[in-house]
Amino acid sequence: MSKIIVHEVGPRDGLQSEKRTVPTEQKLAWIRGLLESKVDIVQVGSFVHREKVPQMADTDELCRLLQADKKPAAVLSALVLNDKGLERGLACGVDMLCMGASASETHSQKNVGASSLDSQKRIIAMAERALSAGKQVQVSVQCAFGCGFEGCVPQERVLTMVRAYVEAGLRSISLADTAGHAHPEQVKRLFGELFKMADDIQCTCHFHDTYGLGMANIYAAMQVGVTSFETGFAGIGGCPFTKVMAGNVATEDLVHGLQRNGQRQDIDLGKLIGVARSVAGFFDRDMQGRVYKTEPIPY
Amino acid sequence: MSKIIVHEVGPRDGLQSEKRTVPTEQKLAWIRGLLESKVDIVQVGSFVHREKVPQMADTDELCRLLQADKKPAAVLSALVLNDKGLERGLACGVDMLCMGASASETHSQKNVGASSLDSQKRIIAMAERALSAGKQVQVSVQCAFGCGFEGCVPQERVLTMVRAYVEAGLRSISLADTAGHAHPEQVKRLFGELFKMADDIQCTCHFHDTYGLGMANIYAAMQVGVTSFETGFAGIGGCPFTKVMAGNVATEDLVHGLQRNGQRQDIDLGKLIGVARSVAGFFDRDMQGRVYKTEPIPY
Repeated sequence: MSKIIVHEVGPRDGLQSEKRTVPTEQKLAWIRGLLESKVDIVQVGSFVHREKVPQMADTDELCRLLQADKKPAAVLSALVLNDKGLERGLACGVDMLCMGASASETHSQKNVGASSLDSQKRIIAMAERALSAGKQVQVSVQCAFGCGFEGCVPQERVLTMVRAYVEAGLRSISLADTAGHAHPEQVKRLFGELFKMADDIQCTCHFHDTYGLGMANIYAAMQVGVTSFETGFAGIGGCPFTKVMAGNVATEDLVHGLQRNGQRQDIDLGKLIGVARSVAGFFDRDMQGRVYKTEPIPY
Repeated sequence: MSKIIVHEVGPRDGLQSEKRTVPTEQKLAWIRGLLESKVDIVQVGSFVHREKVPQMADTDELCRLLQADKKPAAVLSALVLNDKGLERGLACGVDMLCMGASASETHSQKNVGASSLDSQKRIIAMAERALSAGKQVQVSVQCAFGCGFEGCVPQERVLTMVRAYVEAGLRSISLADTAGHAHPEQVKRLFGELFKMADDIQCTCHFHDTYGLGMANIYAAMQVGVTSFETGFAGIGGCPFTKVMAGNVATEDLVHGLQRNGQRQDIDLGKLIGVARSVAGFFDRDMQGRVYKTEPIPY
Protein backbone atom coordinates (compact mmCIF):
# COMPACT_ATOMS: atom_id res chain seq x y z
CA MET A 1 0.00 0.00 0.00
CA SER A 2 1.31 3.42 -0.97
CA LYS A 3 1.52 6.06 1.70
CA ILE A 4 -1.50 8.35 1.44
CA ILE A 5 -0.63 12.04 1.80
CA VAL A 6 -3.11 14.20 3.71
CA HIS A 7 -3.27 17.89 2.79
CA GLU A 8 -5.49 19.73 5.28
CA VAL A 9 -7.16 22.68 3.54
CA GLY A 10 -9.72 23.59 6.24
CA PRO A 11 -7.97 26.82 7.34
CA ARG A 12 -8.23 28.07 3.74
CA ASP A 13 -11.04 26.35 1.83
CA GLY A 14 -13.15 26.01 4.95
CA LEU A 15 -12.71 29.35 6.65
CA GLN A 16 -12.74 31.56 3.54
CA SER A 17 -16.51 31.30 3.18
CA GLU A 18 -17.32 31.76 6.86
CA LYS A 19 -18.88 35.10 7.84
CA ARG A 20 -17.65 35.06 11.42
CA THR A 21 -14.06 36.27 11.51
CA VAL A 22 -11.67 33.86 13.17
CA PRO A 23 -9.03 35.65 15.29
CA THR A 24 -5.44 34.93 14.27
CA GLU A 25 -4.77 33.37 17.70
CA GLN A 26 -7.61 30.89 17.16
CA LYS A 27 -6.34 29.97 13.69
CA LEU A 28 -2.88 29.48 15.15
CA ALA A 29 -4.24 27.11 17.79
CA TRP A 30 -6.07 25.03 15.18
CA ILE A 31 -3.14 24.93 12.76
CA ARG A 32 -0.71 24.03 15.54
CA GLY A 33 -3.06 21.16 16.48
CA LEU A 34 -3.06 20.01 12.86
CA LEU A 35 0.74 20.16 12.69
CA GLU A 36 1.00 18.21 15.94
CA SER A 37 -1.31 15.55 14.49
CA LYS A 38 1.34 14.99 11.81
CA VAL A 39 -0.83 15.46 8.74
CA ASP A 40 1.57 16.09 5.88
CA ILE A 41 0.58 19.52 4.59
CA VAL A 42 -1.54 22.28 6.11
CA GLN A 43 -2.96 25.01 3.89
CA VAL A 44 -2.76 28.12 6.02
CA GLY A 45 -4.73 30.57 3.91
CA SER A 46 -4.96 32.42 0.65
CA PHE A 47 -3.03 35.45 -0.62
CA VAL A 48 -6.16 37.13 -1.86
CA HIS A 49 -7.23 40.79 -1.66
CA ARG A 50 -7.44 41.61 2.05
CA GLU A 51 -10.58 43.72 1.76
CA LYS A 52 -12.38 41.31 -0.53
CA VAL A 53 -11.80 38.34 1.79
CA PRO A 54 -11.00 39.72 5.26
CA GLN A 55 -11.03 36.19 6.70
CA MET A 56 -7.78 35.49 4.78
CA ALA A 57 -6.09 38.84 5.56
CA ASP A 58 -3.73 37.31 8.14
CA THR A 59 -2.27 34.63 5.87
CA ASP A 60 1.17 36.30 5.66
CA GLU A 61 1.32 36.74 9.43
CA LEU A 62 0.21 33.15 10.06
CA CYS A 63 2.92 31.81 7.76
CA ARG A 64 5.60 33.81 9.54
CA LEU A 65 4.42 32.81 13.01
CA LEU A 66 4.01 29.14 12.12
CA GLN A 67 7.30 28.79 10.32
CA ALA A 68 9.05 29.44 13.62
CA ASP A 69 7.49 26.53 15.48
CA LYS A 70 6.64 23.91 12.88
CA LYS A 71 8.38 20.55 12.67
CA PRO A 72 10.77 20.08 9.74
CA ALA A 73 8.65 17.34 8.13
CA ALA A 74 5.47 19.40 7.99
CA VAL A 75 4.72 21.55 4.97
CA LEU A 76 2.80 24.83 5.09
CA SER A 77 0.93 25.67 1.90
CA ALA A 78 -1.10 28.66 0.76
CA LEU A 79 -3.17 29.56 -2.27
CA VAL A 80 -2.15 32.31 -4.66
CA LEU A 81 -4.45 33.72 -7.33
CA ASN A 82 -2.35 36.36 -9.10
CA ASP A 83 1.03 38.11 -9.24
CA LYS A 84 0.31 40.29 -6.23
CA GLY A 85 -0.52 37.21 -4.18
CA LEU A 86 2.62 35.55 -5.46
CA GLU A 87 4.73 38.47 -4.22
CA ARG A 88 3.25 38.02 -0.76
CA GLY A 89 3.73 34.26 -0.92
CA LEU A 90 7.38 34.62 -1.85
CA ALA A 91 7.96 37.17 0.91
CA CYS A 92 6.72 35.04 3.82
CA GLY A 93 7.76 31.66 5.12
CA VAL A 94 5.31 29.42 3.29
CA ASP A 95 6.75 26.18 1.85
CA MET A 96 4.30 25.35 -0.92
CA LEU A 97 2.32 27.63 -3.20
CA CYS A 98 -0.87 26.27 -4.74
CA MET A 99 -2.42 27.87 -7.81
CA GLY A 100 -4.86 26.81 -10.47
CA ALA A 101 -7.02 27.50 -13.48
CA SER A 102 -10.55 26.34 -14.20
CA ALA A 103 -11.58 23.86 -16.88
CA SER A 104 -14.93 25.63 -17.11
CA GLU A 105 -14.97 28.80 -19.23
CA THR A 106 -17.92 30.25 -17.33
CA HIS A 107 -16.32 29.57 -13.95
CA SER A 108 -13.00 30.95 -15.19
CA GLN A 109 -14.59 34.20 -16.39
CA LYS A 110 -16.57 34.65 -13.18
CA ASN A 111 -13.57 33.92 -10.98
CA VAL A 112 -10.65 35.59 -12.66
CA GLY A 113 -12.18 37.47 -15.60
CA ALA A 114 -10.10 35.54 -18.13
CA SER A 115 -10.52 32.56 -20.40
CA SER A 116 -9.45 29.17 -19.20
CA LEU A 117 -6.45 29.20 -21.58
CA ASP A 118 -5.24 32.71 -20.64
CA SER A 119 -5.69 31.94 -16.97
CA GLN A 120 -3.63 28.77 -17.26
CA LYS A 121 -0.84 30.62 -19.11
CA ARG A 122 -0.63 33.09 -16.23
CA ILE A 123 -0.63 30.25 -13.70
CA ILE A 124 2.22 28.47 -15.49
CA ALA A 125 4.28 31.66 -15.51
CA MET A 126 3.60 32.15 -11.79
CA ALA A 127 4.47 28.52 -11.07
CA GLU A 128 7.82 28.88 -12.87
CA ARG A 129 8.59 31.99 -10.85
CA ALA A 130 7.69 30.30 -7.56
CA LEU A 131 9.83 27.26 -8.42
CA SER A 132 12.78 29.53 -9.28
CA ALA A 133 12.36 31.14 -5.87
CA GLY A 134 12.75 27.73 -4.24
CA LYS A 135 9.13 27.09 -3.32
CA GLN A 136 7.27 23.82 -3.74
CA VAL A 137 4.50 24.34 -6.26
CA GLN A 138 1.20 22.58 -6.82
CA VAL A 139 -0.88 23.54 -9.85
CA SER A 140 -4.52 22.60 -10.20
CA VAL A 141 -7.40 22.21 -12.58
CA GLN A 142 -10.58 23.53 -11.00
CA CYS A 143 -14.01 22.21 -12.04
CA ALA A 144 -12.18 19.13 -13.33
CA PHE A 145 -15.24 16.93 -12.86
CA GLY A 146 -18.08 19.29 -13.71
CA CYS A 147 -19.24 22.86 -13.27
CA GLY A 148 -22.22 24.33 -11.43
CA PHE A 149 -22.78 26.73 -14.34
CA GLU A 150 -21.91 24.58 -17.35
CA GLY A 151 -22.73 21.10 -16.10
CA CYS A 152 -20.55 18.52 -17.85
CA VAL A 153 -16.87 19.42 -18.34
CA PRO A 154 -15.45 17.21 -21.10
CA GLN A 155 -12.63 14.97 -19.91
CA GLU A 156 -10.51 15.95 -22.90
CA ARG A 157 -10.55 19.59 -21.81
CA VAL A 158 -9.15 18.60 -18.41
CA LEU A 159 -6.51 16.35 -19.96
CA THR A 160 -5.44 19.17 -22.31
CA MET A 161 -4.85 21.40 -19.30
CA VAL A 162 -2.92 18.68 -17.49
CA ARG A 163 -0.83 18.19 -20.65
CA ALA A 164 0.02 21.91 -20.67
CA TYR A 165 1.20 21.68 -17.07
CA VAL A 166 3.25 18.56 -17.79
CA GLU A 167 4.85 20.17 -20.86
CA ALA A 168 5.79 23.14 -18.70
CA GLY A 169 7.70 20.73 -16.45
CA LEU A 170 5.17 20.84 -13.64
CA ARG A 171 4.50 17.50 -11.96
CA SER A 172 2.53 18.21 -8.78
CA ILE A 173 -1.02 18.51 -10.09
CA SER A 174 -4.30 18.73 -8.21
CA LEU A 175 -7.66 17.98 -9.78
CA ALA A 176 -10.39 19.81 -7.90
CA ASP A 177 -14.03 18.85 -7.93
CA THR A 178 -15.05 22.44 -7.25
CA ALA A 179 -18.75 21.81 -7.83
CA GLY A 180 -18.88 18.36 -6.23
CA HIS A 181 -20.05 16.70 -9.46
CA ALA A 182 -17.53 13.83 -9.59
CA HIS A 183 -18.67 10.25 -9.39
CA PRO A 184 -16.43 7.21 -8.82
CA GLU A 185 -16.49 5.79 -12.37
CA GLN A 186 -15.62 9.21 -13.79
CA VAL A 187 -12.75 9.54 -11.32
CA LYS A 188 -11.30 6.20 -12.37
CA ARG A 189 -11.64 7.00 -16.08
CA LEU A 190 -10.04 10.44 -15.81
CA PHE A 191 -7.04 9.32 -13.77
CA GLY A 192 -6.63 6.23 -15.91
CA GLU A 193 -6.09 8.55 -18.89
CA LEU A 194 -4.04 11.07 -16.94
CA PHE A 195 -1.44 8.59 -15.71
CA LYS A 196 -0.85 7.47 -19.31
CA MET A 197 0.51 10.97 -19.99
CA ALA A 198 3.51 10.78 -17.67
CA ASP A 199 4.22 8.24 -14.97
CA ASP A 200 5.87 10.71 -12.62
CA ILE A 201 2.85 12.98 -12.11
CA GLN A 202 2.14 13.49 -8.41
CA CYS A 203 -1.63 13.76 -8.40
CA THR A 204 -3.76 15.21 -5.67
CA CYS A 205 -7.55 15.13 -5.48
CA HIS A 206 -9.85 17.63 -3.89
CA PHE A 207 -13.46 16.42 -3.64
CA HIS A 208 -16.43 18.29 -2.28
CA ASP A 209 -19.17 16.20 -0.77
CA THR A 210 -22.07 18.15 -2.26
CA TYR A 211 -23.92 15.03 -3.43
CA GLY A 212 -22.67 12.43 -0.95
CA LEU A 213 -19.98 10.91 -3.17
CA GLY A 214 -16.88 12.62 -1.75
CA MET A 215 -15.42 9.68 0.17
CA ALA A 216 -16.40 7.16 -2.53
CA ASN A 217 -14.52 9.34 -5.02
CA ILE A 218 -11.43 9.32 -2.80
CA TYR A 219 -11.44 5.51 -2.67
CA ALA A 220 -12.00 5.34 -6.45
CA ALA A 221 -9.01 7.63 -6.95
CA MET A 222 -6.85 5.51 -4.63
CA GLN A 223 -7.65 2.44 -6.70
CA VAL A 224 -6.17 3.97 -9.81
CA GLY A 225 -3.05 5.22 -8.08
CA VAL A 226 -3.80 8.64 -6.58
CA THR A 227 -2.03 8.91 -3.24
CA SER A 228 -2.67 12.48 -2.09
CA PHE A 229 -5.91 14.14 -0.95
CA GLU A 230 -7.03 17.57 0.14
CA THR A 231 -9.62 17.50 2.91
CA GLY A 232 -11.02 19.89 5.51
CA PHE A 233 -11.44 19.62 9.29
CA ALA A 234 -15.00 18.68 10.34
CA GLY A 235 -15.96 18.62 6.63
CA ILE A 236 -16.08 22.41 6.61
CA GLY A 237 -16.43 24.32 3.38
CA GLY A 238 -19.04 25.80 1.13
CA CYS A 239 -21.32 28.62 2.08
CA PRO A 240 -23.91 27.66 4.71
CA PHE A 241 -26.28 30.34 3.41
CA THR A 242 -26.70 28.93 -0.07
CA LYS A 243 -28.91 26.10 -1.22
CA VAL A 244 -26.03 23.84 -2.17
CA MET A 245 -23.96 22.74 0.80
CA ALA A 246 -20.54 21.89 -0.52
CA GLY A 247 -18.27 20.91 2.32
CA ASN A 248 -14.99 19.10 1.90
CA VAL A 249 -14.56 15.49 2.85
CA ALA A 250 -13.65 15.66 6.56
CA THR A 251 -9.95 15.13 7.26
CA GLU A 252 -10.60 13.08 10.37
CA ASP A 253 -13.08 10.86 8.48
CA LEU A 254 -10.43 10.14 5.84
CA VAL A 255 -7.70 9.43 8.41
CA HIS A 256 -10.03 7.25 10.48
CA GLY A 257 -10.90 5.19 7.38
CA LEU A 258 -7.21 4.82 6.49
CA GLN A 259 -6.32 3.73 10.01
CA ARG A 260 -9.12 1.12 10.00
CA ASN A 261 -7.12 -0.39 7.13
CA GLY A 262 -3.76 -0.15 8.91
CA GLN A 263 -2.61 2.95 7.04
CA ARG A 264 -1.24 6.23 8.41
CA GLN A 265 -1.10 5.06 12.01
CA ASP A 266 1.49 7.79 12.49
CA ILE A 267 -1.19 10.48 12.34
CA ASP A 268 -2.70 11.41 15.71
CA LEU A 269 -6.43 11.03 14.99
CA GLY A 270 -7.33 12.20 18.49
CA LYS A 271 -5.68 15.56 17.83
CA LEU A 272 -7.50 15.91 14.50
CA ILE A 273 -10.82 15.20 16.23
CA GLY A 274 -9.97 17.77 18.88
CA VAL A 275 -9.40 20.43 16.22
CA ALA A 276 -12.60 19.48 14.36
CA ARG A 277 -14.63 19.76 17.57
CA SER A 278 -13.10 23.10 18.35
CA VAL A 279 -13.96 24.37 14.85
CA ALA A 280 -17.56 23.10 15.08
CA GLY A 281 -17.80 24.66 18.54
CA PHE A 282 -16.46 28.01 17.33
CA PHE A 283 -19.07 28.25 14.57
CA ASP A 284 -21.66 26.62 16.82
CA ARG A 285 -23.19 24.42 14.17
CA ASP A 286 -23.35 20.86 13.01
CA MET A 287 -20.67 20.23 10.39
CA GLN A 288 -20.65 17.54 7.70
CA GLY A 289 -17.93 15.40 9.27
CA ARG A 290 -18.97 12.16 10.97
CA VAL A 291 -16.06 10.98 13.12
CA TYR A 292 -15.72 14.17 15.17
CA LYS A 293 -19.27 13.59 16.46
CA THR A 294 -18.30 10.26 17.93
CA GLU A 295 -15.15 8.46 19.01
CA PRO A 296 -12.84 6.53 16.71
CA ILE A 297 -13.50 2.80 16.83
CA PRO A 298 -11.07 1.22 19.33
CA TYR A 299 -9.45 -1.47 17.18
CA MET B 1 -23.13 -3.03 -15.72
CA SER B 2 -25.45 -5.11 -13.56
CA LYS B 3 -28.73 -3.61 -12.52
CA ILE B 4 -28.41 -2.24 -9.00
CA ILE B 5 -31.41 -3.07 -6.79
CA VAL B 6 -32.52 -0.37 -4.35
CA HIS B 7 -34.24 -1.51 -1.16
CA GLU B 8 -35.63 1.50 0.70
CA VAL B 9 -35.62 0.80 4.44
CA GLY B 10 -36.36 4.31 5.72
CA PRO B 11 -39.94 3.59 6.85
CA ARG B 12 -38.55 0.82 9.09
CA ASP B 13 -34.91 1.39 9.97
CA GLY B 14 -35.31 5.15 9.91
CA LEU B 15 -38.61 5.67 11.68
CA GLN B 16 -38.23 2.98 14.36
CA SER B 17 -35.86 5.12 16.41
CA GLU B 18 -37.79 8.39 16.05
CA LYS B 19 -39.60 9.59 19.19
CA ARG B 20 -42.27 11.55 17.33
CA THR B 21 -44.99 9.16 16.18
CA VAL B 22 -45.69 9.29 12.47
CA PRO B 23 -49.42 8.99 11.68
CA THR B 24 -50.32 6.06 9.41
CA GLU B 25 -51.62 8.47 6.76
CA GLN B 26 -48.25 10.22 6.65
CA LYS B 27 -46.38 6.93 6.33
CA LEU B 28 -48.76 5.92 3.54
CA ALA B 29 -48.02 9.15 1.67
CA TRP B 30 -44.25 8.61 1.95
CA ILE B 31 -44.39 4.95 0.97
CA ARG B 32 -46.68 5.70 -1.97
CA GLY B 33 -44.15 8.29 -3.12
CA LEU B 34 -41.39 5.70 -2.85
CA LEU B 35 -43.41 3.17 -4.83
CA GLU B 36 -44.16 5.78 -7.50
CA SER B 37 -40.43 6.52 -7.75
CA LYS B 38 -39.99 2.88 -8.82
CA VAL B 39 -37.39 1.84 -6.29
CA ASP B 40 -37.45 -1.94 -6.25
CA ILE B 41 -38.35 -2.82 -2.66
CA VAL B 42 -39.81 -0.74 0.17
CA GLN B 43 -39.52 -1.93 3.75
CA VAL B 44 -42.79 -0.89 5.32
CA GLY B 45 -42.08 -1.63 8.96
CA SER B 46 -41.30 -4.26 11.55
CA PHE B 47 -43.52 -6.88 13.17
CA VAL B 48 -42.20 -6.11 16.61
CA HIS B 49 -44.04 -5.83 19.94
CA ARG B 50 -46.55 -2.98 19.51
CA GLU B 51 -46.04 -1.55 22.99
CA LYS B 52 -42.26 -1.79 22.88
CA VAL B 53 -42.02 0.04 19.55
CA PRO B 54 -45.28 1.97 19.06
CA GLN B 55 -43.84 3.61 15.92
CA MET B 56 -44.05 0.22 14.17
CA ALA B 57 -47.51 -0.75 15.51
CA ASP B 58 -49.28 -0.04 12.21
CA THR B 59 -47.06 -2.29 10.05
CA ASP B 60 -49.85 -4.86 9.45
CA GLU B 61 -52.33 -2.15 8.51
CA LEU B 62 -49.84 -0.44 6.20
CA CYS B 63 -49.12 -3.69 4.38
CA ARG B 64 -52.82 -4.31 3.82
CA LEU B 65 -53.53 -0.78 2.63
CA LEU B 66 -50.48 -0.66 0.34
CA GLN B 67 -51.00 -4.04 -1.21
CA ALA B 68 -54.21 -2.73 -2.75
CA ASP B 69 -52.60 0.09 -4.70
CA LYS B 70 -49.01 -0.97 -5.37
CA LYS B 71 -47.71 -1.71 -8.85
CA PRO B 72 -47.03 -5.37 -9.65
CA ALA B 73 -43.28 -4.86 -10.01
CA ALA B 74 -42.81 -3.29 -6.58
CA VAL B 75 -42.05 -5.43 -3.57
CA LEU B 76 -43.16 -4.62 -0.03
CA SER B 77 -40.91 -5.99 2.68
CA ALA B 78 -41.05 -6.04 6.46
CA LEU B 79 -38.81 -7.18 9.28
CA VAL B 80 -39.73 -10.06 11.56
CA LEU B 81 -37.88 -10.84 14.77
CA ASN B 82 -39.66 -13.90 16.15
CA ASP B 83 -42.50 -16.41 15.63
CA LYS B 84 -45.18 -13.98 16.75
CA GLY B 85 -43.96 -11.44 14.23
CA LEU B 86 -43.85 -14.14 11.58
CA GLU B 87 -47.53 -14.97 12.22
CA ARG B 88 -48.41 -11.33 11.62
CA GLY B 89 -46.20 -11.19 8.54
CA LEU B 90 -47.86 -14.24 7.04
CA ALA B 91 -51.33 -12.89 7.79
CA CYS B 92 -50.95 -9.58 5.94
CA GLY B 93 -50.13 -8.74 2.36
CA VAL B 94 -46.38 -8.24 2.62
CA ASP B 95 -44.31 -9.77 -0.22
CA MET B 96 -40.92 -10.23 1.43
CA LEU B 97 -40.00 -11.05 5.00
CA CYS B 98 -36.58 -10.02 6.25
CA MET B 99 -35.04 -11.62 9.31
CA GLY B 100 -31.56 -11.96 10.73
CA ALA B 101 -29.13 -13.01 13.44
CA SER B 102 -26.11 -11.14 14.76
CA ALA B 103 -22.49 -12.18 14.31
CA SER B 104 -21.69 -10.50 17.63
CA GLU B 105 -22.46 -12.56 20.74
CA THR B 106 -22.89 -9.47 22.89
CA HIS B 107 -25.21 -7.80 20.40
CA SER B 108 -27.16 -11.04 19.97
CA GLN B 109 -27.69 -11.43 23.73
CA LYS B 110 -28.71 -7.80 24.15
CA ASN B 111 -31.09 -7.90 21.20
CA VAL B 112 -32.76 -11.27 21.37
CA GLY B 113 -31.49 -12.84 24.60
CA ALA B 114 -29.95 -15.77 22.77
CA SER B 115 -26.56 -16.81 21.47
CA SER B 116 -25.66 -16.07 17.89
CA LEU B 117 -25.93 -19.76 16.98
CA ASP B 118 -29.32 -20.34 18.67
CA SER B 119 -30.66 -17.16 17.17
CA GLN B 120 -29.60 -18.20 13.68
CA LYS B 121 -31.21 -21.64 14.10
CA ARG B 122 -34.51 -19.94 14.94
CA ILE B 123 -34.15 -17.59 11.98
CA ILE B 124 -33.53 -20.48 9.59
CA ALA B 125 -36.65 -22.29 10.88
CA MET B 126 -38.68 -19.08 10.45
CA ALA B 127 -37.28 -18.55 6.97
CA GLU B 128 -38.26 -22.05 5.91
CA ARG B 129 -41.79 -21.48 7.20
CA ALA B 130 -42.08 -18.16 5.38
CA LEU B 131 -40.83 -19.70 2.13
CA SER B 132 -43.33 -22.55 2.47
CA ALA B 133 -46.06 -19.94 2.86
CA GLY B 134 -45.02 -18.44 -0.49
CA LYS B 135 -43.22 -15.35 0.79
CA GLN B 136 -39.94 -14.00 -0.53
CA VAL B 137 -37.36 -14.25 2.24
CA GLN B 138 -34.17 -12.36 2.93
CA VAL B 139 -31.95 -13.50 5.79
CA SER B 140 -29.24 -11.34 7.25
CA VAL B 141 -26.11 -11.29 9.33
CA GLN B 142 -26.13 -8.27 11.64
CA CYS B 143 -22.90 -6.72 12.89
CA ALA B 144 -21.19 -8.39 9.92
CA PHE B 145 -18.42 -5.77 9.82
CA GLY B 146 -17.91 -4.97 13.50
CA CYS B 147 -19.81 -4.45 16.74
CA GLY B 148 -20.18 -1.39 18.94
CA PHE B 149 -19.75 -3.59 22.02
CA GLU B 150 -17.18 -6.13 20.86
CA GLY B 151 -15.25 -4.15 18.28
CA CYS B 152 -13.80 -6.45 15.63
CA VAL B 153 -16.04 -9.28 14.39
CA PRO B 154 -13.85 -11.96 12.78
CA GLN B 155 -14.62 -12.48 9.09
CA GLU B 156 -14.67 -16.25 9.59
CA ARG B 157 -17.57 -15.94 12.05
CA VAL B 158 -19.60 -14.08 9.41
CA LEU B 159 -18.70 -16.59 6.70
CA THR B 160 -19.73 -19.47 8.99
CA MET B 161 -23.16 -17.90 9.41
CA VAL B 162 -23.49 -17.31 5.67
CA ARG B 163 -22.52 -20.97 5.11
CA ALA B 164 -25.30 -22.08 7.48
CA TYR B 165 -27.82 -20.05 5.49
CA VAL B 166 -26.55 -21.42 2.20
CA GLU B 167 -26.67 -25.00 3.50
CA ALA B 168 -30.29 -24.39 4.54
CA GLY B 169 -31.02 -23.52 0.91
CA LEU B 170 -31.35 -19.78 1.53
CA ARG B 171 -29.82 -17.60 -1.18
CA SER B 172 -31.02 -14.04 -0.53
CA ILE B 173 -28.59 -12.84 2.13
CA SER B 174 -28.03 -9.37 3.55
CA LEU B 175 -24.88 -8.36 5.38
CA ALA B 176 -25.64 -5.48 7.71
CA ASP B 177 -23.07 -3.05 9.05
CA THR B 178 -25.18 -2.43 12.13
CA ALA B 179 -22.48 -0.45 13.93
CA GLY B 180 -21.14 1.37 10.88
CA HIS B 181 -17.65 -0.10 11.29
CA ALA B 182 -17.11 -1.37 7.74
CA HIS B 183 -14.35 0.02 5.57
CA PRO B 184 -13.95 -0.49 1.82
CA GLU B 185 -11.03 -2.94 1.89
CA GLN B 186 -12.84 -5.09 4.46
CA VAL B 187 -15.98 -5.06 2.31
CA LYS B 188 -14.05 -6.27 -0.73
CA ARG B 189 -12.28 -9.00 1.27
CA LEU B 190 -15.45 -10.31 2.89
CA PHE B 191 -17.49 -10.49 -0.31
CA GLY B 192 -14.56 -11.92 -2.21
CA GLU B 193 -14.63 -14.87 0.20
CA LEU B 194 -18.40 -15.05 0.34
CA PHE B 195 -18.92 -15.39 -3.41
CA LYS B 196 -16.51 -18.32 -3.46
CA MET B 197 -19.04 -20.23 -1.35
CA ALA B 198 -21.84 -20.34 -3.93
CA ASP B 199 -22.15 -18.36 -7.12
CA ASP B 200 -25.91 -17.97 -6.90
CA ILE B 201 -26.01 -16.00 -3.63
CA GLN B 202 -28.04 -12.82 -4.01
CA CYS B 203 -26.21 -10.47 -1.69
CA THR B 204 -27.53 -7.26 -0.25
CA CYS B 205 -25.57 -4.73 1.77
CA HIS B 206 -26.82 -2.42 4.47
CA PHE B 207 -24.26 0.21 5.50
CA HIS B 208 -24.62 2.84 8.17
CA ASP B 209 -22.69 6.04 7.65
CA THR B 210 -21.53 6.43 11.23
CA TYR B 211 -17.92 7.16 10.27
CA GLY B 212 -18.36 8.67 6.81
CA LEU B 213 -17.59 5.50 4.85
CA GLY B 214 -21.12 4.38 3.94
CA MET B 215 -21.12 5.36 0.26
CA ALA B 216 -17.49 4.29 -0.24
CA ASN B 217 -18.47 0.88 1.16
CA ILE B 218 -21.35 0.63 -1.32
CA TYR B 219 -19.00 1.31 -4.25
CA ALA B 220 -16.48 -1.19 -2.87
CA ALA B 221 -19.23 -3.81 -2.65
CA MET B 222 -20.35 -3.07 -6.22
CA GLN B 223 -16.83 -3.69 -7.45
CA VAL B 224 -16.83 -7.23 -6.13
CA GLY B 225 -20.25 -8.07 -7.49
CA VAL B 226 -22.85 -6.96 -4.93
CA THR B 227 -25.86 -5.56 -6.78
CA SER B 228 -28.40 -4.81 -4.07
CA PHE B 229 -28.37 -2.16 -1.34
CA GLU B 230 -30.56 -1.12 1.57
CA THR B 231 -30.70 2.64 2.08
CA GLY B 232 -32.92 5.14 3.86
CA PHE B 233 -34.67 8.33 2.70
CA ALA B 234 -32.76 11.49 3.66
CA GLY B 235 -30.12 9.30 5.33
CA ILE B 236 -32.42 8.78 8.28
CA GLY B 237 -31.62 6.26 11.00
CA GLY B 238 -29.87 5.99 14.28
CA CYS B 239 -30.97 7.74 17.42
CA PRO B 240 -30.44 11.50 17.31
CA PHE B 241 -30.16 11.61 21.09
CA THR B 242 -27.10 9.39 21.37
CA LYS B 243 -23.50 10.32 20.84
CA VAL B 244 -23.05 8.15 17.78
CA MET B 245 -25.15 9.27 14.85
CA ALA B 246 -25.67 6.25 12.68
CA GLY B 247 -27.90 7.10 9.75
CA ASN B 248 -28.27 5.00 6.65
CA VAL B 249 -26.76 5.99 3.35
CA ALA B 250 -29.43 8.22 1.80
CA THR B 251 -31.46 6.51 -0.91
CA GLU B 252 -31.59 9.60 -3.11
CA ASP B 253 -27.80 10.04 -2.78
CA LEU B 254 -27.28 6.47 -4.00
CA VAL B 255 -29.73 6.82 -6.89
CA HIS B 256 -28.27 10.19 -7.89
CA GLY B 257 -24.78 8.69 -7.98
CA LEU B 258 -26.00 5.74 -10.07
CA GLN B 259 -27.79 8.03 -12.52
CA ARG B 260 -24.65 10.16 -12.92
CA ASN B 261 -23.14 6.95 -14.28
CA GLY B 262 -26.07 6.16 -16.57
CA GLN B 263 -27.59 3.55 -14.25
CA ARG B 264 -31.16 3.23 -12.98
CA GLN B 265 -32.52 6.07 -15.09
CA ASP B 266 -35.90 4.39 -14.62
CA ILE B 267 -36.08 5.56 -11.01
CA ASP B 268 -37.77 8.95 -10.51
CA LEU B 269 -35.14 10.80 -8.47
CA GLY B 270 -37.37 13.87 -8.17
CA LYS B 271 -39.98 11.83 -6.34
CA LEU B 272 -37.35 10.37 -3.99
CA ILE B 273 -36.11 13.88 -3.21
CA GLY B 274 -39.70 14.99 -2.57
CA VAL B 275 -40.17 12.21 -0.01
CA ALA B 276 -36.82 12.95 1.66
CA ARG B 277 -37.72 16.63 1.99
CA SER B 278 -41.08 15.77 3.44
CA VAL B 279 -39.44 13.45 5.99
CA ALA B 280 -36.85 16.08 6.99
CA GLY B 281 -39.67 18.64 7.22
CA PHE B 282 -41.80 16.36 9.39
CA PHE B 283 -38.99 15.87 11.93
CA ASP B 284 -37.85 19.46 11.44
CA ARG B 285 -34.17 18.74 11.46
CA ASP B 286 -31.17 18.47 9.20
CA MET B 287 -30.73 14.89 8.03
CA GLN B 288 -27.52 13.22 6.83
CA GLY B 289 -28.52 13.03 3.16
CA ARG B 290 -26.89 15.45 0.75
CA VAL B 291 -28.91 15.44 -2.48
CA TYR B 292 -32.26 16.31 -0.89
CA LYS B 293 -30.74 19.62 0.26
CA THR B 294 -29.96 20.63 -3.29
CA GLU B 295 -31.12 19.73 -6.78
CA PRO B 296 -29.82 16.83 -8.83
CA ILE B 297 -27.20 17.88 -11.33
CA PRO B 298 -28.90 18.48 -14.71
CA TYR B 299 -26.88 16.21 -16.99
